[in-house]
Order: sequence, then structure tokens, then C-alpha cells
Amino acid sequence: MTIQPFDLAIIEQAKAHLDQLTKPLGSLGRVEELAVQLAGITGEVQPVIEKPAIIVAAADHGIVNEGVSAYPQEVTALMIDNFVKGGAAINVFARQIGAAVTVADVGVNYELGSQPIAHHKIRYGTGNFLLEDAMTEEEAASAVEIGRQLAVAQIEKGHRLLITGEMGIGNTSASSALTAAITGAKVADVVGFGTGINQETKQQKIAIIERALTNRGITSQTPPLSILAKVGGLEIATLAGVILEGAARRVPVLIDGFISSAAALAAAKLEPEVHPYLMIAHQSVEDGHRIVTDYLQIKPLLQLDLRLGEGTGAALAYPIVEAASRMMREMATFKDLGM
Amino acid sequence: MTIQPFDLAIIEQAKAHLDQLTKPLGSLGRVEELAVQLAGITGEVQPVIEKPAIIVAAADHGIVNEGVSAYPQEVTALMIDNFVKGGAAINVFARQIGAAVTVADVGVNYELGSQPIAHHKIRYGTGNFLLEDAMTEEEAASAVEIGRQLAVAQIEKGHRLLITGEMGIGNTSASSALTAAITGAKVADVVGFGTGINQETKQQKIAIIERALTNRGITSQTPPLSILAKVGGLEIATLAGVILEGAARRVPVLIDGFISSAAALAAAKLEPEVHPYLMIAHQSVEDGHRIVTDYLQIKPLLQLDLRLGEGTGAALAYPIVEAASRMMREMATFKDLGM
Repeated sequence: MTIQPFDLAIIEQAKAHLDQLTKPLGSLGRVEELAVQLAGITGEVQPVIEKPAIIVAAADHGIVNEGVSAYPQEVTALMIDNFVKGGAAINVFARQIGAAVTVADVGVNYELGSQPIAHHKIRYGTGNFLLEDAMTEEEAASAVEIGRQLAVAQIEKGHRLLITGEMGIGNTSASSALTAAITGAKVADVVGFGTGINQETKQQKIAIIERALTNRGITSQTPPLSILAKVGGLEIATLAGVILEGAARRVPVLIDGFISSAAALAAAKLEPEVHPYLMIAHQSVEDGHRIVTDYLQIKPLLQLDLRLGEGTGAALAYPIVEAASRMMREMATFKDLGM
Repeated sequence: MTIQPFDLAIIEQAKAHLDQLTKPLGSLGRVEELAVQLAGITGEVQPVIEKPAIIVAAADHGIVNEGVSAYPQEVTALMIDNFVKGGAAINVFARQIGAAVTVADVGVNYELGSQPIAHHKIRYGTGNFLLEDAMTEEEAASAVEIGRQLAVAQIEKGHRLLITGEMGIGNTSASSALTAAITGAKVADVVGFGTGINQETKQQKIAIIERALTNRGITSQTPPLSILAKVGGLEIATLAGVILEGAARRVPVLIDGFISSAAALAAAKLEPEVHPYLMIAHQSVEDGHRIVTDYLQIKPLLQLDLRLGEGTGAALAYPIVEAASRMMREMATFKDLGM
């Protein structure tokens, strides 16, 4: 399935409808912009946005061997246990918005066969991309395809909005490397404190990612799938697939923070037609996120200084997206009011 | 009832609980700050925030005779009809969050006796404060008292969070005058485009409010109730009462945009103890709002370029407040997870 450009007639109809609603022109600001984007995405002036589905892609990262993370790799599997038991932040926020949560193992470095999750393990964590490619291009392509299948499964169940989430100790390092490789930004500008490293570890993280990008031979000419394979993550490639398939099927995908936005960046390089479909939920405090959102020229909906991941920021932003769709469907027009 | 200071032991317990939850320390950013504030407000580490009640106070403004608004005064009454029929933006957003909406006429310049709303009309609109005081101090005090009663009624019905909303053509002028009078800011800095006036009308609006503040003899020594009476609004005084009573009863009040924040400003001058209780939902595009939030040193939760009022921004922000309370109650601790 290919991604279609927005139908400009629908966009104009959406704008015209907004201006007939009982409110001062433009007074709902970004909620109105969102309503116009939803019309473009869905091809409907008054789309029904409901029953969100959260896809949490989980994988491990060989780069953690370089000491770039505040937490050990085992935490990825422990957090999957937390997701299954319903105790993680994303479970709490999902219950609030009535969202289904699908946890998909696409590359956790732990045997998870007994967990009731979606099993799509491609390999037991990526390679340490300081020393070797994170994965092969075939593995990266498989992860994108799994993301597409995960999206299709949720859409076929009737979910009308997808939320991207992830879990993977070390995945800010992969996202920083990916962001630097794709945008050309300096590594020092795309590396933050992750889940809570100190200043010294941050400087080491910068140095390691700089060396890794040199070691992997990445240039401005390296194709996006190759970048994903060299320094990406299995969950990041999976989420790129979710984002692309959602757009192809005209179902809105609400993108969470830095890791999910790195996936969106990769998706936009793989298929530039996805760009108008991208909705980013929140501006993370992780430094690299600003580089991604500036590069994509997308202003996130929320600014709440979040840096948790899992899809939490997107779950928090979801009610605004639902409100935009309800506004289009339920608000009275001046004509209704006899004005 | 007097407003109690926060119990510092509860605040410390809330922070300690946050740091035991299964997430990197501080990674939910402003949602964590909000959870600590909710603990302070309610006196409970794990408060139940649910069943929000929206109080929409409506009144008219004599200053509209000076041509300061993009809409005629009749629109206030027409919008009340829209609220009653459920077609306004606030109705749509209220349905989404399961909120009750109470519309209170505290001073609409129209006979609304047949409308199924809360009837507390103090007078038929304020006086034109360029020429005379907007109302007497007794009327302002009555409006504050009505706000308190409206809050009590909702709290006694079991609502655990109050949202302030308003409707009143001309009320950005009153809010701008009030903001300049209380903060000492220049009138030119607190006047915006309201519901959609042009640059020329905006300049006239600035000149009229400057003359009005001189005519009303307002100085830095004028007491807050006197300022409310001289240049305020009946709905603004009412919302000050809602904000004060919510704090006194330890029920969170989510304050909407510029008009509601002007009410919060007045409330904070009437009873400074209310300050730690104030939660402002969104940063309005109306210029004066930034002056109010800077003066109060409060960062609003959302930045969505809204300028509609009615309580819409607070209804959109409400899910974040609910999420903060659910996080405290429902998230697993590291201990739960055996970590």
C-alpha cells in the first residue's frame, strides 16, 4: 500500500467547517490545526477518532556494553513483566483513555516465551554498533514489516488511532546516533541524559556515538534502511513500520517522544510521503528530540518535560486529538444557533 | 472557611512515593510536579481526581459600548442558549471528560429566566467602567460569594475537581484592566486581540482602558475588592469565589485561560494563601495572560494557542490532572516488581 497525498478539497472543507462553528475564528488554535490534519489523514472532514491502540515495541541494544545507560539491560525484560501485569505508567495512562496495549518483543535479549505478549523476536538484541552493525539490512527490513503487521492487526480490530511506544535500555543511544546520521546534527547536540546518566557518562556517550558513526562509515549518502541497520534499533525500525502503515491506511498515528520520533524520522526518509501524516505528541526533554522535531518541522502537542517513553506522552496527548475530532462532529454551527 | 497551608509532610511523602514508582526518577516531568501539588491541595498522597465539574459564569460588560469587542453584547445570551443545547465547545469537551456543566447567570444583560441554568443575576451587566465603576463593592462581594456557593454545590454533589469557565462579551477588556491594575503592567502589554478585533480597534481598546484606569482613580494602594468593583466583571468575581472556596475545601480547581486567570489573580490578592493551590490549564495567546502567569509565577500545563474561554482549555488539560492522580494510585513500585 502506498501513502496518498492529502486531498486538498477535504482540507478546504475542514477549514470551512471550522469557520462555521460557534466560536471566534481560529480561537481553538492548535486543536483546529489538528482537526485539519486529521481530515487530511483520514480523508474525512468529521472523522471518528476513538478506541486508540498502543503498540509498545521492545528490544535490547548491544551498545549498552559501552556503559551508556543508567540501567542494566535486564530492565527491559523486567519492564515487560510490568507491562503484562499492568503496573507501568503506560498501562495506567492507557486505562484512563480506554486504549488497548500490545507489547511486542522484536528483539529483547531475554527468553520471553512464557509472557503473553506479541512474539516477533528477530534477534536477541542488536550488536554493539561501536564494533559492528547493529543488525543486517534484512533484519531492519523485517522489523519494519513486523511494525506494519502490528499496525494492520490493530486497525483490523477497529482501532481508529495508533500510539507508538517502546521499551529498550540503551535506545536513546541508538536514537541519538540515528538522528545525527539522518539530520547531520552534531552528536553533542543529539545526546541527552537518557533515563538519568550523569554529565561524565553523557560525555562518554557522545564520544562513543561519534566513534561509532565513523566506524560504521555513515555518510550523507547512506540510505535510510542502511542507517537503521548500522546504528538503529529493532524497536525503532518496528515503529517506523507502524507509522508508515498507519499513514498508508489513513489511520492517525500519534508519535510519542524521542525514540518514537527517531522512528518517524527514519520513516520519513524511507517514504517522504508520510510527512504530512506525522503527529508528534510531546516535546521530550531529551536534547535530541528538538533536533528531530526541528528537522521535521513539526511542533509537538505537549510540553510536559517528559522523558519516560513507553508511549506515555502520546497517551497523555491522545485526549486532545479526540477532542479535535469531537469538535468537528459535535459543535453547533452559527446557522444551528440562528446567528 | 480559611485556606490551609500545604502539609509539608504530605508533600514529602508524595515525592518519596513518586521515586518508588517504576520509571526513571523524575521522568514524568510536569505530571510529577502536578501530583505533588495535588497532594498538597487535597492533603492526600494518592488523591482520587474524578468527576470534574465545570462552572461557566456568564455576565455582560458595559465597556462594550466603547466598541472594544468583535462581537455584540447579544452574543452572551445566544451562547448561553448554545450551552443549554449542548452545542458549544465546552459542552463537547465536557462530554468527552465526563464533566458536569453548570452555567450560572451572574450578570447577563438579558432576561434569561426561562433558561435551565443557575440564576444568580446580580445586575444586568456591569457599568461602562470608562464612565463609572463597573459595580459596587457590595455587588463584587456578592459575586465572590455566589462563586463560593456554586463551588460548594458541586463539591457536595461529589465532584472532586472544579473547572472555571466563563462567557461574557467584553470580558477580555475587564481582565486586561484588572491585570494592569493589580500587576502594575502597562496597559499596552495586557491588551490582546480578544475574540478577533483588528490592530486599529486594539489600539483604541488600549487607549480606553488607560483612560478608564485613570478615571477610576486606581493606584497601587487600591484594595483588590475595590479593583474588582471598579474595572472587573461579575463573572470574574464569581470565579474568584470558586477558586477560593475550592482551595478552602481542598478540592483542586483547574483554571482556564486569561479571564479565569484574572479571577485567580484577584483571588490571590484577596487571600494570598490560595497561591499554592492555583493550577492554570493553558497559556492563552491573549497577550495579558503571560503577564498574569509571570506575575503569579505559574507555568500553565498546555500551550495550544487557545483564546476561546468557556473553560475549554481547562477541559482539554483535565486528563493530565487525572493522569497525575492515577499515576500515584495505580503505578507499580520497584518493590512490587521485585527490583
